[in-house]
Amino acid sequence: MGMTMTQKILAAHAGLDSVRAGQFIEAKLDLVLGNDITTPVAVNEFKKLNYDCVFNKSKIAIVPDHFTPNKDIKAAEQCKYIREFAKEKEIENFFEVGEMGIEHALIPEKGLVVPGDTVIGADSHTCTYGALGAFSTGIGSTDMAAGMATGKAWFKVPSAIKFNLTGKPQGYVSGKDVILHIIGMIGVDGALYKSMEFVGEGLKHLSIDDRFTIANMAIEAGAKNGIFLVDDITLEYVKEHSTKEYTVYEPDADAEYDEVYDIDLSTLRPTVSFPHLPDNTRTIDEVGDIDIDQVVIGSCTNGRISDLRVAAEILKGKKVKKGVRTIVFPGTQKIYLDALREGLIEIFIEAGVSVSTPTCGPCLGGHMGILAKGERAVATTNRNFVGRMGHVESEVYLASPAVAAASALTGKITNPENL
Amino acid sequence: MGMTMTQKILAAHAGLDSVRAGQFIEAKLDLVLGNDITTPVAVNEFKKLNYDCVFNKSKIAIVPDHFTPNKDIKAAEQCKYIREFAKEKEIENFFEVGEMGIEHALIPEKGLVVPGDTVIGADSHTCTYGALGAFSTGIGSTDMAAGMATGKAWFKVPSAIKFNLTGKPQGYVSGKDVILHIIGMIGVDGALYKSMEFVGEGLKHLSIDDRFTIANMAIEAGAKNGIFLVDDITLEYVKEHSTKEYTVYEPDADAEYDEVYDIDLSTLRPTVSFPHLPDNTRTIDEVGDIDIDQVVIGSCTNGRISDLRVAAEILKGKKVKKGVRTIVFPGTQKIYLDALREGLIEIFIEAGVSVSTPTCGPCLGGHMGILAKGERAVATTNRNFVGRMGHVESEVYLASPAVAAASALTGKITNPENL
Repeated sequence: MGMTMTQKILAAHAGLDSVRAGQFIEAKLDLVLGNDITTPVAVNEFKKLNYDCVFNKSKIAIVPDHFTPNKDIKAAEQCKYIREFAKEKEIENFFEVGEMGIEHALIPEKGLVVPGDTVIGADSHTCTYGALGAFSTGIGSTDMAAGMATGKAWFKVPSAIKFNLTGKPQGYVSGKDVILHIIGMIGVDGALYKSMEFVGEGLKHLSIDDRFTIANMAIEAGAKNGIFLVDDITLEYVKEHSTKEYTVYEPDADAEYDEVYDIDLSTLRPTVSFPHLPDNTRTIDEVGDIDIDQVVIGSCTNGRISDLRVAAEILKGKKVKKGVRTIVFPGTQKIYLDALREGLIEIFIEAGVSVSTPTCGPCLGGHMGILAKGERAVATTNRNFVGRMGHVESEVYLASPAVAAASALTGKITNPENL
Repeated sequence: MGMTMTQKILAAHAGLDSVRAGQFIEAKLDLVLGNDITTPVAVNEFKKLNYDCVFNKSKIAIVPDHFTPNKDIKAAEQCKYIREFAKEKEIENFFEVGEMGIEHALIPEKGLVVPGDTVIGADSHTCTYGALGAFSTGIGSTDMAAGMATGKAWFKVPSAIKFNLTGKPQGYVSGKDVILHIIGMIGVDGALYKSMEFVGEGLKHLSIDDRFTIANMAIEAGAKNGIFLVDDITLEYVKEHSTKEYTVYEPDADAEYDEVYDIDLSTLRPTVSFPHLPDNTRTIDEVGDIDIDQVVIGSCTNGRISDLRVAAEILKGKKVKKGVRTIVFPGTQKIYLDALREGLIEIFIEAGVSVSTPTCGPCLGGHMGILAKGERAVATTNRNFVGRMGHVESEVYLASPAVAAASALTGKITNPENL
């Protein structure tokens, strides 16, 4: 019986010729990742393990991005704790305020993940790197500790769902709409502990940023990971950003899938997830009249340069509606600089947008844009759970940068096609 | 007996021919100001006063700048509360995220204060507008409430200290160094409930931004207000920013001053306030070897375009020292835009600086750069009290943008002349 992409990567990292779904294996890790929320716990666990050193100083990355620049004394103490750990263990990839970004935007940009890698990160959206044909998944802080010590992790090999993408997205339909559509279709537990494998001739119409967005939200369907077939678009990105050796794994022709979905991208519409679950989706044609208080464009899901480009295109020469707090969070300092040089930041400021330094910010209810009772936000982020962005009686509507920008102009959830 | 500048303004606003120090008067107000911390309390008090309307919809300004973009749910609720009040009372100058800035940078920029005005603000640094030859002072939230209702406030007429400035500041000496030198000289209670009146031929060497910085920190010497003689530099600024009528008040030749200081600006050195009081000053030549963790450039004291220019000049083409978190906070969206168009923001990002959206941020220990135990910051802000920027065992060193930028490059408090 053949293997899926994910199974092939795991087999290779476990030193096995083949693996099957449900099998427990121990895999070597190419990268172990943590942020300012999860790493302090991992460091505490690491200290109990009696390892003098981390397994590999260049294969660990720590990115203080959630509550930074330090939100409060607690955040400052957490960052200090992991900074001192990184210094003591000579961890090479500790990214300080000013050189950092949101971890899942930063790590690929820094070339730390390439096709065929196995990556764990103490953050649920670590699945983002599947966009590059890597096996990449979120784990807990204890697993991060063990990973830092041993360079290995145990996995139950996942089965998979195949998404065979065809056609070309039309108009403002983006990667965000693709993944919201899929989550709406299969539900927030539709891929529970499974791989979501993305293949098909439609891939050629999905930019690397679209793929990052799609893989990023695989966890929102419960998936263990999302992963894309590697193609020229992938390799162009990898060659531009990394000097690491990589291996391309393709699924076997007879790989077994629990389900196969054929999705014609040309039929999709801009899609919005209504409160309070990502699978509560409606097409833009069905949203009705929803007034909003805030718009958030950014996050590990949609804070990349192409996201900022589409938002700027819509906002150019216009003003956000008076009273609609609109905040743009570029994913990394490099994305910020690129956007600045392209004139996008100027467009945002002229439109009355607040442009933040890179941080996870309000996405997880952290800081920099928290909602009061009864307030509504349209956000390009990844979760709209109850209270996710603030008060338990606030609401988050997930959408693409295009829909978010259009909504900032009108103060209602708006189809950018209708501007 | 003649009157000081402040006394003349107060007499005119009280409808009196003359006033003397110590006299209690009721003055008409040209502007009543509040922020997101103080206005909610003022609104509660206003509601007890049984006034249906505010005294004048165009003479009240509310600027949510301290914990915005909303730091947390409490901040979000506070902003919501004052936003709804502003809407209900049709207050014209409510500045939302995206159109705002730090209040004391924003209010003059919006032309809301001109020479001869009497202004109260529920924020201690309201004294900033003395740079424009206005009487402007910080009051409590209850006084703000009464001011919003009646358009009047009671004052005890202050006596004054005259600062006769001569000479031209040399090298990197700026307004910040002037005021730190003065506070070091007279102490944090050196001007308690007095006016600090700045006159003399040295004024022509102090830009309007220098004057904002100096007036801003008058409160740090305990002053009721700081005020500058109006000259061509003032009027150029006023004409560029405001269409309001203004009146220039000059001190009488026989005005009485409690003290007169002659200060030759050409003799001053870059000056740093050591923890934990602004009057604990040393010249840059006396600072010794002080390692730092963070640099903050911005705030209502030093977040203006000329501050950013000098910082950018020093950082251009260089990188901040690895591990030194360096955060720039432009004072307003307009300052941000001007800095962007001049290429300053690009210089900052290239240097490894985190550029924030305008907010009071870490200055008052709010958010966006809080210090952990034992950490040290060089900051262009206005207070270095115990725990001001975070943990009670952290330290803040107040300095000019030039010293702050130089220190970011070396990781120690550094004389920019020595780079």
